[in-house]
Amino acid sequence: MTTKPLQGLSLIGQTPAAPSGMLFHAQNPATGEALDPPYHEAGDEDMDRACRLAAEAAPVLARTSGKLRADFLRAIAARLEAIAEAIAARMPQETGLPEARARGELARTCGQLRLFAAVAEEGAWLDARIDHGDPERRPAPKPDIRSMLQPLGPVAVFAASNFPLAFSVAGGDTASAFAAGCPVVVKAHGAHPGLSELVGREIQAAARERGLPEGTFALLFGAGSRLGAALVRHPAIQAVGFTGSIAGGTALMRLAAERPQPIPVYAEMGSVNPVVLLEGALARRGTAIAEGLAASVTLGAGQFCTCPGLVLAVDGPAYRDFRAVLSARLAALPAAPMLSLAMAEHFQNGIAAQQVCPGVEALVRGSAGAGHGAPVLQETSADNLLAQPRLMEEVFGPSTLLVRAESETELVQVLKALPGQLTATVHADEAELAERPALVETLAKMAGRVLFGGFPTGVEVGHAMVHGGPFPATSDGRSTSVGSAAITRFARPVCYQGFPDTLLPETLREGNPLGLMRLVDGERRR
Amino acid sequence: MTTKPLQGLSLIGQTPAAPSGMLFHAQNPATGEALDPPYHEAGDEDMDRACRLAAEAAPVLARTSGKLRADFLRAIAARLEAIAEAIAARMPQETGLPEARARGELARTCGQLRLFAAVAEEGAWLDARIDHGDPERRPAPKPDIRSMLQPLGPVAVFAASNFPLAFSVAGGDTASAFAAGCPVVVKAHGAHPGLSELVGREIQAAARERGLPEGTFALLFGAGSRLGAALVRHPAIQAVGFTGSIAGGTALMRLAAERPQPIPVYAEMGSVNPVVLLEGALARRGTAIAEGLAASVTLGAGQFCTCPGLVLAVDGPAYRDFRAVLSARLAALPAAPMLSLAMAEHFQNGIAAQQVCPGVEALVRGSAGAGHGAPVLQETSADNLLAQPRLMEEVFGPSTLLVRAESETELVQVLKALPGQLTATVHADEAELAERPALVETLAKMAGRVLFGGFPTGVEVGHAMVHGGPFPATSDGRSTSVGSAAITRFARPVCYQGFPDTLLPETLREGNPLGLMRLVDGERRR
Repeated sequence: MTTKPLQGLSLIGQTPAAPSGMLFHAQNPATGEALDPPYHEAGDEDMDRACRLAAEAAPVLARTSGKLRADFLRAIAARLEAIAEAIAARMPQETGLPEARARGELARTCGQLRLFAAVAEEGAWLDARIDHGDPERRPAPKPDIRSMLQPLGPVAVFAASNFPLAFSVAGGDTASAFAAGCPVVVKAHGAHPGLSELVGREIQAAARERGLPEGTFALLFGAGSRLGAALVRHPAIQAVGFTGSIAGGTALMRLAAERPQPIPVYAEMGSVNPVVLLEGALARRGTAIAEGLAASVTLGAGQFCTCPGLVLAVDGPAYRDFRAVLSARLAALPAAPMLSLAMAEHFQNGIAAQQVCPGVEALVRGSAGAGHGAPVLQETSADNLLAQPRLMEEVFGPSTLLVRAESETELVQVLKALPGQLTATVHADEAELAERPALVETLAKMAGRVLFGGFPTGVEVGHAMVHGGPFPATSDGRSTSVGSAAITRFARPVCYQGFPDTLLPETLREGNPLGLMRLVDGERRR
Repeated sequence: MTTKPLQGLSLIGQTPAAPSGMLFHAQNPATGEALDPPYHEAGDEDMDRACRLAAEAAPVLARTSGKLRADFLRAIAARLEAIAEAIAARMPQETGLPEARARGELARTCGQLRLFAAVAEEGAWLDARIDHGDPERRPAPKPDIRSMLQPLGPVAVFAASNFPLAFSVAGGDTASAFAAGCPVVVKAHGAHPGLSELVGREIQAAARERGLPEGTFALLFGAGSRLGAALVRHPAIQAVGFTGSIAGGTALMRLAAERPQPIPVYAEMGSVNPVVLLEGALARRGTAIAEGLAASVTLGAGQFCTCPGLVLAVDGPAYRDFRAVLSARLAALPAAPMLSLAMAEHFQNGIAAQQVCPGVEALVRGSAGAGHGAPVLQETSADNLLAQPRLMEEVFGPSTLLVRAESETELVQVLKALPGQLTATVHADEAELAERPALVETLAKMAGRVLFGGFPTGVEVGHAMVHGGPFPATSDGRSTSVGSAAITRFARPVCYQGFPDTLLPETLREGNPLGLMRLVDGERRR
């Protein structure tokens, strides 16, 4: 199958935007080569048109059935699979990621789209509730009240660079917003515009094919932060999804809070994903843990939000053996191309900033050419970390920092000093952890996901996944951006009081025509 | 039963605060008389001690069972019922509300406490989810993942003046936060400190009796906004509940957003609760609607968040008949004492500000002595309202503004221009509304609760109630502050990956020892 050539223009409604003349190019991070075509940045008028179309589309989408939303999401997935070759060709050029990763991430992205299709179709997410009235109640009759979730309206989605498919144009934010019945305006990530256009065109076509309104979807290109800021300020936008840095996420949070009408921001930002190694586990499985950790730290050149960037253990012979194996493994791994030249430079700067901190020792530091990142392993003491909180900050790339504690008390002290995290992992024998219930509580207080054994990279897409966590890991620890529960981010409850059955949304009608699981007079039933 | 004399001191942990010397008195709004005892404002040290105790209590409360939380909430309800006489004596003095209202609101408050007790005990609110692992899955084994909601930590609750029991010290915010497992620090409303102390003492005693930690509850007195601002800024506080004005609520939103760690604010603020009267309903039931509306507008001297402050209809004979009946009914109703002298003055100023707007005609304006409010009815045209958005603002008290439209198109234009509302009501014949599906959608887009017939005052406490709505009706339209769903405001999800069964919270164990409704591999079951 051949795909039509890339246009280099934002997609607004069913037509491309007019060329603006403000151009940027994607760049191959492995070679520095500029990639064609040039991309035109969307201007304020394009952005405004996208948002106004989205506002017009919102009530129409809100009215669509779960079935139609599911068809739409499945059509997007099928269309993306149909252009798998084009995706597998373009994505490595723009991101430095290998072709196998492109194919794997495409499968994950389509899996996500189909998960949200199933969620929309099944309808339990609507949290339909019915409290029957009682005209005989004294002193006042009890009214009939029925509630359900309804879509918030147009959602601005900021695509991430590190998952150019799964957290980008047709990623989890877009899929969950569509499933909830919201139009989506995507701000493409500047590092992979060609891939974004390929994906965006398929969403546009799927919307057209299903007869959805023009404003259902828009894709805006822009290299700097100006376009994104204007988008968050636009009065039509009712929520924001973002994956990226703490600086970027908190800037959007401020913009959203300062609007005349403040709106929710779901920003997945930064995390060092602490891994705690207890003595028993280190003694019995130290080598295996070191091997697994080396693989997790360098997976995707360390460019995962869940990359384990901080490893804590109490000093001792088992720890030292573990450290030796980890050092050897990481030193043996090659440098890998990073997502962009800027990302690679940012990584080098982050490592350099750690190394100038007193008391930080470099154990492994490979050399890497431009655009590449080589594995880095550094070590510091727990008291040194406590004295220098900047060492608790994420360094995005294939690096981890060992934190050597003198005692378990000191180790727990470090854990309590850490800011909010996406994940927290403990390696321990079962009996060992059973004696320390407070440790699991400490990890659960700090993070959205707590792991017993294993490593945090690899975020399973399911019903129970929580890819979230307290600030600054995310803007809003009450939500997840991965898994079926992500859909509720883009909805709010509305109740209907005293309505005749025929005037109620189908979801709430007495006969339950959609066969939904509902909470009826306090009891969950279908 | 006699109760011990009021002390006039904040309650922090199990001891009263030290006298600060900064004193204020409650005042009888009907007489202007200052009420004893004088109340000492809590200083920064008191506030800090309350928050630090709450932070210490948080992990202990998080660990408590739903059963223990339920016992605690029921003990509070029983204790409040046991001091019903003292409450019925004090509340009218401090609030101008009649004794019958005090007894009715006490019953409602105890009903709320028991509803949240049942919710905590039943446990479905925890949204337990289990995705079983599959070690055989290829290419990578599927991990076992289990999630549940966990309490956010210490909650600051700002008591309202207009529901001195149900939205105050032991009101819905406090009850739902306790049910979720969060400690609560209440900032008492300055208008009813004696009643607050009476109620706070019973919560304190119930916590002691159940062996809960000292920081489970604190009650702070303070007349100005300084104490509240410092409380929201305190690093131990993890969420805020507030009921009051838009100015007060948005100030807290700003403070919370500007913290080093931003926290959620659930502020229920202002609403004019539009009531739309369609022609058929007016023609057939105009008199009954006018009578019901007059009662709703003046209930509790109009001091309800859900008081209908804006009534929209298309001009015509039926509208004019309705207007005449409404005018007569309201003119016949007496002035009533308002919650405080300041509230009565604020009401007069609000009416005066409406009346200086060009095109506003006073139809009823009774006279009232100091501290009292007399019913007010004014009228304006739809185009005049559209030209003067300040007329869309709430005037808190027994007043409503008729908006006379030339056509239904114009009426809908007004609806679309209104900001977010707690409620929106339509009076229509069933067939009449069936022909206008977009009208119900417009109301649902604007409000948290949509009524067919009836009046918005009277907020039923149940599972389906949504007492919320888009900004500025509340800070966060994704939540409700009344009804069982309010509990989720104070929790966030955490997932456990790969944990041995014995190390999981009971809620998530394979054998379901608590007998909870859970989502297991995507299916809801017990």
